[in-house]
Amino acid sequence: MKKIVATSLLLFSLPAFGQAKEDSIQFSKISTEILNKGKSYTELRDLTKNIGHRLSGSEAYKKSVKWAEQKLRDAGADKVWFQEVMIPVWERGKESLQIKISDGKWKNLKMLSLGNSEGTGGKDVSGEIIMVKSMEEYEKLPAEKVKDKIVFFNYPFNQSYIQTFKGYSDAAKYRVNAASLTAKKGGKVAIIRSLSSAFDDVPHTGAMRYENDQKIPAVAIGNTTADELERLLQSQKITAKLNSSCGMKGEKLSHSVIGEITGKKDKNVILVGGHLDSWDVGEGAHDDGTGIVQSIEVLRTFKNLGIKNNHTIRVVCFANEENGVKGGIQYGKTVRDNNEKHLFAIETDAGGFTPRGVSLEMDDQKRNQIKSWKPLFEPYGATDFEGRYSGTDIYPLHDMGVPTAELVPDSQRYFDIHHTEEDTFEKVNRRELLLGATVITQLIYMIDKNW
Amino acid sequence: MKKIVATSLLLFSLPAFGQAKEDSIQFSKISTEILNKGKSYTELRDLTKNIGHRLSGSEAYKKSVKWAEQKLRDAGADKVWFQEVMIPVWERGKESLQIKISDGKWKNLKMLSLGNSEGTGGKDVSGEIIMVKSMEEYEKLPAEKVKDKIVFFNYPFNQSYIQTFKGYSDAAKYRVNAASLTAKKGGKVAIIRSLSSAFDDVPHTGAMRYENDQKIPAVAIGNTTADELERLLQSQKITAKLNSSCGMKGEKLSHSVIGEITGKKDKNVILVGGHLDSWDVGEGAHDDGTGIVQSIEVLRTFKNLGIKNNHTIRVVCFANEENGVKGGIQYGKTVRDNNEKHLFAIETDAGGFTPRGVSLEMDDQKRNQIKSWKPLFEPYGATDFEGRYSGTDIYPLHDMGVPTAELVPDSQRYFDIHHTEEDTFEKVNRRELLLGATVITQLIYMIDKNW
Repeated sequence: MKKIVATSLLLFSLPAFGQAKEDSIQFSKISTEILNKGKSYTELRDLTKNIGHRLSGSEAYKKSVKWAEQKLRDAGADKVWFQEVMIPVWERGKESLQIKISDGKWKNLKMLSLGNSEGTGGKDVSGEIIMVKSMEEYEKLPAEKVKDKIVFFNYPFNQSYIQTFKGYSDAAKYRVNAASLTAKKGGKVAIIRSLSSAFDDVPHTGAMRYENDQKIPAVAIGNTTADELERLLQSQKITAKLNSSCGMKGEKLSHSVIGEITGKKDKNVILVGGHLDSWDVGEGAHDDGTGIVQSIEVLRTFKNLGIKNNHTIRVVCFANEENGVKGGIQYGKTVRDNNEKHLFAIETDAGGFTPRGVSLEMDDQKRNQIKSWKPLFEPYGATDFEGRYSGTDIYPLHDMGVPTAELVPDSQRYFDIHHTEEDTFEKVNRRELLLGATVITQLIYMIDKNW
Repeated sequence: MKKIVATSLLLFSLPAFGQAKEDSIQFSKISTEILNKGKSYTELRDLTKNIGHRLSGSEAYKKSVKWAEQKLRDAGADKVWFQEVMIPVWERGKESLQIKISDGKWKNLKMLSLGNSEGTGGKDVSGEIIMVKSMEEYEKLPAEKVKDKIVFFNYPFNQSYIQTFKGYSDAAKYRVNAASLTAKKGGKVAIIRSLSSAFDDVPHTGAMRYENDQKIPAVAIGNTTADELERLLQSQKITAKLNSSCGMKGEKLSHSVIGEITGKKDKNVILVGGHLDSWDVGEGAHDDGTGIVQSIEVLRTFKNLGIKNNHTIRVVCFANEENGVKGGIQYGKTVRDNNEKHLFAIETDAGGFTPRGVSLEMDDQKRNQIKSWKPLFEPYGATDFEGRYSGTDIYPLHDMGVPTAELVPDSQRYFDIHHTEEDTFEKVNRRELLLGATVITQLIYMIDKNW
């Protein structure tokens, strides 16, 4: 298309008088600064390409801790420090899943062990596959039908939800619980269809959990493989063979990285953060490299624009969100131990896509105050302030009564690549990422000024 | 991130009673049908991968005409026909741009001739480069400083606009007018910095226009090359050499493709369309393959859901939008000649990204009626009904008093790839594309029912 629409200055759409006008002008300064001079995108390239994925406990995670420290200093933090935290160590090792079909040959299936899953100890574990399409179908199976079998939970991602997070939440119980459910009836291995909104063959990993000591392996396969397996099972019995060496390897000392600009009026904290760790596939770009670089962008923008913050603005790069949330839990404990007052905390951990709004988890009075600022955000496309949830890492703060929030980016692409080899820098758009940082900075500006 | 938010059924957010409830249920049916069974994405893969780019007058365009006819029939159109239209033929041929820097060697620059530009007739045309950063700077140059020179208009895409269409419109005058402005002062060639929101080296083509018979060549270079050229020009004189064989090659008979489902009540037309042609680089995916497959999806969805349309729902796949708009003009002329009443026309030609709303170009009474339906669209993320423009191809209808509209997709990524080698199927997300088709279908459902 080549149509040329009339150019109008953004300022024309701003409220005309007084306080709102002043805020509008400040919003515009923040946006212009970030869209033109923001460093999130180049910093994300550095993190993803020079360090890459960074699972808790890995050498790469250690590198990312030093990286984050340096970036916080570069951005102009007054103070930067590490917060010690004991984290669980999970390692993938080698893994393979094969099936034997009617021609008697073994065929490799593309797969990923689920995070925190135990493996087969490097030995072959084989059994006949039985497939169920849902938990309900599984619950009806008598134990003798499951005993010694490999159970394939072939529950599809529900495409009907407009917000893909709903489809993800709906399917996540399969990832989390498939192994324990299978073990309970004597099954040997659980296979799940990946929690994926795409129509491809990319397997998605992610955390699972054992309910007790019956720790059987759990793996995920991609959509195309799942469809093919379903088709094959309609006409024949299939034996599968899993060989994997993944498993928990004890605990390690690790670190969250924290940087701040001290408040001019008091040291009450306004927190913005994401998680520095990632799964051990792809580059941890949208999950959650984007949240890390956006959080650092907030601090840099306050510095670059010379905004004198009343309260302390603190960036937290949380350790171990993906398979333990130990960084978030430790942070909350430290806040409680030190009796550090937190005014507000916002997390950005839903991908670096175009911001659509902010989800608010707090009392109605504060919630309504933030919602009253909506007209200021509308020119930036952030119009959805209806959500009532916030991020995983700041949940301990929420439990202590701190008003918490989460950036709401457009969700359409996230679960195509979430926890996969495909979560790479190339999937992040520069302007979308910077606009997300813009909206968070604008919100923190308002809170710093008014709370 | 692995947080699991509460799953809620979409129906919970629907208006509770009467007409609005009925419409909400129908909106949900449309959305569920398209998100689960929509064919836009696979049809787009077919169009882009098996036909590819399809410039007016090319063999590929001819193939795409047959392709569109078949897809309209497959979708369930009652009638499908071709509309004849004479279109201008432009061909790129061979092209190269070189510069000679201080070491005396010629260096190739990545470039694209602008669409409709004349070339050098296959001969070398060389001259010293002079650079200006803006029209204003150029206007101040005396003619003797431009005479026999190659003028480099190095105007950057303004990143500060939130809607990238504004940045595009702001910069488009350089693409359209650079050649004529240069020729007027005796220059030999115009080079422009590409109209690109990205920070890469991809050149963007697109239509230019000659004001008179002084038809000198105009070419575009990517951002990185433009930056490098600017740097070099700060310390030395640079000679450039252009050799290109592009140019207009007369006219040809071509076709727009039209399909419809006849109205049950009357034959007044509700039109939805995009353009079938593209530039001769990339695959014409977002521009405007997505608009074509979305338009066909509307028709298919009415058929599949068994919605009995009161008025005729017509899909138009316009010919020659990119370098002449002859398809749109011919369509308007035919409507006038045949005195065919059109109730409404919507175009989708701004990329297959997440829909943010609909732009409405019509009288206030109709506009306000559509805006009163906003609560129905909000669950689908379409909240912006403030724009007052519509598409290029339906502009002749607008001039005849037909209420016109355009889908407003998220604009952040469009001008990274617009009119480039990078406008490929891989840049389109399945759910984003289908959601766009959903919003158009919902709007047409409302108009068909209420107008």
